[in-house]
Amino acid sequence: MIRMALVGAGFIGSVHAENLTAHPSIEFVGVYDVDEVRSNELAARNHTRAIDPVEVFDRSAVDAVLIASSTDTHAAHLRRAAEAGLATLCEKPIDLDLGDALDVVGTVASGGCPAMVDFNRRFDRDYAELHRAVHAGEIGNVELIQMTTRGPALPPLDYIAVSGGQMRDQTVHFFDLARWITGEDPESVFAAGSVFTDPRMTELGDVDTSVVILRMPSGALVQIDSARRTGYGYDERIEVLGSDGMIEAGRQRVGAVTRYRAGNLVTDGMHPGWFERVAPTYRTALDHFVAAIEDGTSIGPTLPEALKAQAIAEAAASSLRSGELETITYPAFAATS
Amino acid sequence: MIRMALVGAGFIGSVHAENLTAHPSIEFVGVYDVDEVRSNELAARNHTRAIDPVEVFDRSAVDAVLIASSTDTHAAHLRRAAEAGLATLCEKPIDLDLGDALDVVGTVASGGCPAMVDFNRRFDRDYAELHRAVHAGEIGNVELIQMTTRGPALPPLDYIAVSGGQMRDQTVHFFDLARWITGEDPESVFAAGSVFTDPRMTELGDVDTSVVILRMPSGALVQIDSARRTGYGYDERIEVLGSDGMIEAGRQRVGAVTRYRAGNLVTDGMHPGWFERVAPTYRTALDHFVAAIEDGTSIGPTLPEALKAQAIAEAAASSLRSGELETITYPAFAATS
Amino acid sequence: MIRMALVGAGFIGSVHAENLTAHPSIEFVGVYDVDEVRSNELAARNHTRAIDPVEVFDRSAVDAVLIASSTDTHAAHLRRAAEAGLATLCEKPIDLDLGDALDVVGTVASGGCPAMVDFNRRFDRDYAELHRAVHAGEIGNVELIQMTTRGPALPPLDYIAVSGGQMRDQTVHFFDLARWITGEDPESVFAAGSVFTDPRMTELGDVDTSVVILRMPSGALVQIDSARRTGYGYDERIEVLGSDGMIEAGRQRVGAVTRYRAGNLVTDGMHPGWFERVAPTYRTALDHFVAAIEDGTSIGPTLPEALKAQAIAEAAASSLRSGELETITYPAFAATS
Amino acid sequence: MIRMALVGAGFIGSVHAENLTAHPSIEFVGVYDVDEVRSNELAARNHTRAIDPVEVFDRSAVDAVLIASSTDTHAAHLRRAAEAGLATLCEKPIDLDLGDALDVVGTVASGGCPAMVDFNRRFDRDYAELHRAVHAGEIGNVELIQMTTRGPALPPLDYIAVSGGQMRDQTVHFFDLARWITGEDPESVFAAGSVFTDPRMTELGDVDTSVVILRMPSGALVQIDSARRTGYGYDERIEVLGSDGMIEAGRQRVGAVTRYRAGNLVTDGMHPGWFERVAPTYRTALDHFVAAIEDGTSIGPTLPEALKAQAIAEAAASSLRSGELETITYPAFAATS
Repeated sequence: MIRMALVGAGFIGSVHAENLTAHPSIEFVGVYDVDEVRSNELAARNHTRAIDPVEVFDRSAVDAVLIASSTDTHAAHLRRAAEAGLATLCEKPIDLDLGDALDVVGTVASGGCPAMVDFNRRFDRDYAELHRAVHAGEIGNVELIQMTTRGPALPPLDYIAVSGGQMRDQTVHFFDLARWITGEDPESVFAAGSVFTDPRMTELGDVDTSVVILRMPSGALVQIDSARRTGYGYDERIEVLGSDGMIEAGRQRVGAVTRYRAGNLVTDGMHPGWFERVAPTYRTALDHFVAAIEDGTSIGPTLPEALKAQAIAEAAASSLRSGELETITYPAFAATS
Repeated sequence: MIRMALVGAGFIGSVHAENLTAHPSIEFVGVYDVDEVRSNELAARNHTRAIDPVEVFDRSAVDAVLIASSTDTHAAHLRRAAEAGLATLCEKPIDLDLGDALDVVGTVASGGCPAMVDFNRRFDRDYAELHRAVHAGEIGNVELIQMTTRGPALPPLDYIAVSGGQMRDQTVHFFDLARWITGEDPESVFAAGSVFTDPRMTELGDVDTSVVILRMPSGALVQIDSARRTGYGYDERIEVLGSDGMIEAGRQRVGAVTRYRAGNLVTDGMHPGWFERVAPTYRTALDHFVAAIEDGTSIGPTLPEALKAQAIAEAAASSLRSGELETITYPAFAATS
Repeated sequence: MIRMALVGAGFIGSVHAENLTAHPSIEFVGVYDVDEVRSNELAARNHTRAIDPVEVFDRSAVDAVLIASSTDTHAAHLRRAAEAGLATLCEKPIDLDLGDALDVVGTVASGGCPAMVDFNRRFDRDYAELHRAVHAGEIGNVELIQMTTRGPALPPLDYIAVSGGQMRDQTVHFFDLARWITGEDPESVFAAGSVFTDPRMTELGDVDTSVVILRMPSGALVQIDSARRTGYGYDERIEVLGSDGMIEAGRQRVGAVTRYRAGNLVTDGMHPGWFERVAPTYRTALDHFVAAIEDGTSIGPTLPEALKAQAIAEAAASSLRSGELETITYPAFAATS
Repeated sequence: MIRMALVGAGFIGSVHAENLTAHPSIEFVGVYDVDEVRSNELAARNHTRAIDPVEVFDRSAVDAVLIASSTDTHAAHLRRAAEAGLATLCEKPIDLDLGDALDVVGTVASGGCPAMVDFNRRFDRDYAELHRAVHAGEIGNVELIQMTTRGPALPPLDYIAVSGGQMRDQTVHFFDLARWITGEDPESVFAAGSVFTDPRMTELGDVDTSVVILRMPSGALVQIDSARRTGYGYDERIEVLGSDGMIEAGRQRVGAVTRYRAGNLVTDGMHPGWFERVAPTYRTALDHFVAAIEDGTSIGPTLPEALKAQAIAEAAASSLRSGELETITYPAFAATS
């Protein structure tokens, strides 16, 4: 049994809490949140206790910590866990400031404890199958990838304001997937974006609709279209064209009911939001984390990998502003993974 | 070049006329119809002449005749073509009276000229593929077949009145396909039907909605559901479950356009009617007929095969009336094919 | 909180145990199984205790009991729960002997406690949507229903031997759904079946492949095809044709990955077995049971409804043997629901 | 009846010849090709005559000419037709040299005869439906378009060498569609490309795989991915995301047959090549041309529209070379349409 503590009792914290409770190999030691009422309630619903930070990072009682607090606290908690010698599973991003993130990754690396960033889409059943097929050589060499990531509605502007912008917040998952699927680090990025939903997005220096092109060292090209508001639900999918065929992780839908009417067929739509689409991945990611710790196998996505995805997002954000193709520079550190 | 004449200038005759005109191996000699205005018009549109019955059945000028006149004249034209030594491609049925049909088939057989009944669904791209796969052993032994045949709207009652009823007019195509796909003659049939569209259907002794079960000598079971009015377009499809897998000829649709809306997807519907669904099969059936004559290969569906499908329809119609399982008796003649 | 006990710690009992543990409105009091080792293990995995029958049926400590023991013990447990004044959620069937089942239903009814049979397909997301749409009048009057129920592989023969046969064990779920969707009790049934998988099925008096036709008092026709072995996975679906359109609960698949290859597309297949297909319904059925008890609303499927489905299965089994259309007789009791 | 002559008896000329023969409103006057054997054969197959250029452009005997000769002769034939006062339907491109093309368009415009470039994808059933829906406001304002155009195999290198390159030869159809669907002229283009199929593509200064981003004045973004070799068949599709929903013209497939096997479903694939995919559009485009001439309604795509698509292709080809975002400059002339 792995003794795990949870930091953060907000929405995503409560998702993790349920998984921690139900996992057969985890003893859910307790939950900490700055809001005591919230942590008490979450603990009560999950057969565990509200604890304080000292207990969270107490190596004698805890083996691993899951960090699901607000973004601006991730770095501090990661550092403290590393210093305490705890394994860590951390929500993305490490830190919106790439320099600060780099510092933390250095600290964690020198501590030597397993650490994983929860880029949970890698644990989606369909994306994992696609990764497996590509790496098994089923489609030969990767030549062209098309990725789509579209949310149903513009998130609240106060969320947008602290999100880091569409590249760092939304598209970054697909930068990570692009690296993971191809096994390559893109060398340049071009991005173009527009604001259609709310003019205040422009004031925030952000876009709600964008297209991105990545070029890989092998010549492979990656297109990513990102939209904040579809009106028709949550829509993400990936197709990978290779020298020997194509493989696609298609649109997932909420059901399989069809109405047949004069002139058309009306079918169940997309998931209402990102959470419904990726809900099972939180459990699968946790399974991977636990199994890797138990078996001493390698864990991923690692912090250096997360840094690389972030570096791509930085360059894409630059391209959005400059209107030019940007070369991507990776942190020296990250070169090791 | 095969010199062909056409009998019948109605709707289906005009479809055949276009194919006769366009076919590279056919010289379209002329068209005959009891309605001279109609045959003149059709001839003018198709670079050919309106001709009289003497010319149609003139062996010195004609090699083959395509019979697409009204149902009650098929038998007489078949007989005359056989007597003249012409190859024949005839619309179904041979004759609604099974005894009369049997007589004609005897006459044609004794004449020795190639004759084919235009059960055109055998020439549908998807059904032909399904037949090929089953006979190639792709799914092992056939165990269960599900067939669906559904029209968009009730045909005019005066058509229904002379059609022979749902079994002989609509379901009969699928009786033929069931035989063709399995390579077996069903031994018994159970049918149940209802009238939902127009109470006058009951007065006509017909049904508009029915389900039929055939049992094959091998134990294979065939289900066929037939409906005259879907409201959502024309819908037919077949699935065949075998000992080693399943193969399906699915719903065909008019296009591939989808609207994505809040809550659902709205997609192009089914074909509006039977003709749009099977239009290409008339050309493909004609190709088969021509190729078989040119190459001296065997032709099909033969007249005896058409008789067998008709015998199944007779038994199914009996079951509809009796509410009992009916054993199917095949004409002695037909046993040869 | 509802205090619930579980009877039965086999495969399906362990599925229920997880749901009982996770349910926010349930206090999982304990589990009883004739095999103590098994109940101890299951209790340990689910934060509860192994208990004995006295504790299970102790009204002072338990509000409701979930019966998931072997089929031949359902009736006795139902009776004891009713006598103790406990609400009951019972796996189907009540009893394979229709007379004995009728007796139990009488006992439970006179006790006045809520009782529900876990025909869990009613709680499938897609079937529930289909039921809702039909009852909302979206497709007008129901005219034709096509149901398919096919398992991936023949169950072990010793299971088959005590299962009651394909009609009572497999098709019965769809008899219940047919009643539920149409709101009608079928008046007659015709069934035909074959054995393709193992000749010993014939010795057991059972079939592995069958087709059934039900006729409803309104004239609506229902076709059900049932197969024990597809070779391609678990496959069930329903389509309902009405006077104003059609609605379908289509094939569900395990994912949305497609390989594009020369000549074809290879897509994720069906669920490997029935459990993967219907797994979420156990939780949804439990939700319904709990909500109905908490809110005092009506519960269903009721025991009399389960009896009706069983009566249809009896008649279908008779038709399989007789080869004749069978009139369905319902237990007098069941007429009230 | 419109009297039409055909110039060009190659593959695409023979496609047009069949349509000219079958069209009820066209008298197919004759065909001219530099290769007399070829034009004689084509004429014989289509009930018409091989004619010489004098007859082709004889206004007393011909009303319209269809130009389907080799690319380098289009401009001369267009000029001659304009001088003779004939309506013209011309295969794309007008001329690979944009300056020469501009000259010709001026000549044709000053002649005042109807002229149309056969960007036949506008006449695809699905793309036309998509255009109609967008212009009817079904999805609000267009925000993001994703287009895919992928061929099954690299064309012969000697074709590539005279094709003008991927942008001018393949992607140009989608530049035209992007303008047509949005009703906007893109203001800038970024393109990135690679060579994966044959290193000699690089020597020819061409690419076989590319991604393009267009920015429209409204801010709408268009992505186009183009590939010369999929290995899995011919694949093109378009999706248009708007402020009120999304509409998609999906992948078309050759049939609707599915094999169900352990673990997966194997379905009919894509069309083998571009011709099978777009074959019906040649007839539909001809219908539009004929109807516009008969009714005196406006015709399209016009020559100036074709020039605009070509101007986008020029800028895209520049971007491929420069690696920079290119502003698109349109010929002054073309501003009128």
